[in-house]
Amino acid sequence: MEWLDQITWTSDGLVPVIAQEATSKDVLMFAWMNREALARTAELGEAVYWSRSRGRLWHKGEESGHVQKVHEIRLDCDNDVVLLMIDQLGHEPGIACHTGRHSCFYSVLQDGRWTPVDPVLKDPASIYHR
Amino acid sequence: MEWLDQITWTSDGLVPVIAQEATSKDVLMFAWMNREALARTAELGEAVYWSRSRGRLWHKGEESGHVQKVHEIRLDCDNDVVLLMIDQLGHEPGIACHTGRHSCFYSVLQDGRWTPVDPVLKDPASIYHR
Repeated sequence: MEWLDQITWTSDGLVPVIAQEATSKDVLMFAWMNREALARTAELGEAVYWSRSRGRLWHKGEESGHVQKVHEIRLDCDNDVVLLMIDQLGHEPGIACHTGRHSCFYSVLQDGRWTPVDPVLKDPASIYHR
Repeated sequence: MEWLDQITWTSDGLVPVIAQEATSKDVLMFAWMNREALARTAELGEAVYWSRSRGRLWHKGEESGHVQKVHEIRLDCDNDVVLLMIDQLGHEPGIACHTGRHSCFYSVLQDGRWTPVDPVLKDPASIYHR
């Protein structure tokens, strides 16, 4: 597929991916995809990442139920970063972070310290040990 | 500085950075910082990236005048991705992309093709050859 060939993949065959919530426009998370993950994402309409720690495809929400429905797939000017516009399903408001928070970017630099400023919406234990 | 030590840097000493416009919440660009770049960003209140192609610090706007004023610096749950909340200065609406567009993420996957959907706001020749 030509659109996949047009991406400048890293030497590991990956591309960085930003997931942004379509309605709130909050940036929810950052992850990586390989060619297969991006092809699956486009085909399914749901985010499928490449888990570098687990070394396998990771259909977001497969354990947590927090699936990401993909509205739009964007590419940057250098063809080496992908931006997904998504709905974060499975909880209201959406939970993208494994800590049970809305977004993974919940810490802010304040007075020289990283300070968590966003609430835990659901106990991670009840997300992952169902 | 402890907050810099808390970041999980890549083996090249870098961290991926997402720049999001504070007012519109548009994701404008993605770049990298090393320790010095992030320290300078926090100190100056303006985005300073590490240019991998040029192998040097890159004070965004140094050539284009399109400086990014930084309101907030966020870190993700894995301590390995930074999110900047910024004002994109130098043009109204802000131009972050070297193509003269608002955002670098101007191409959308439509019918199996990457299609540019956002307008060029200013001729790049007039941005960079002043």
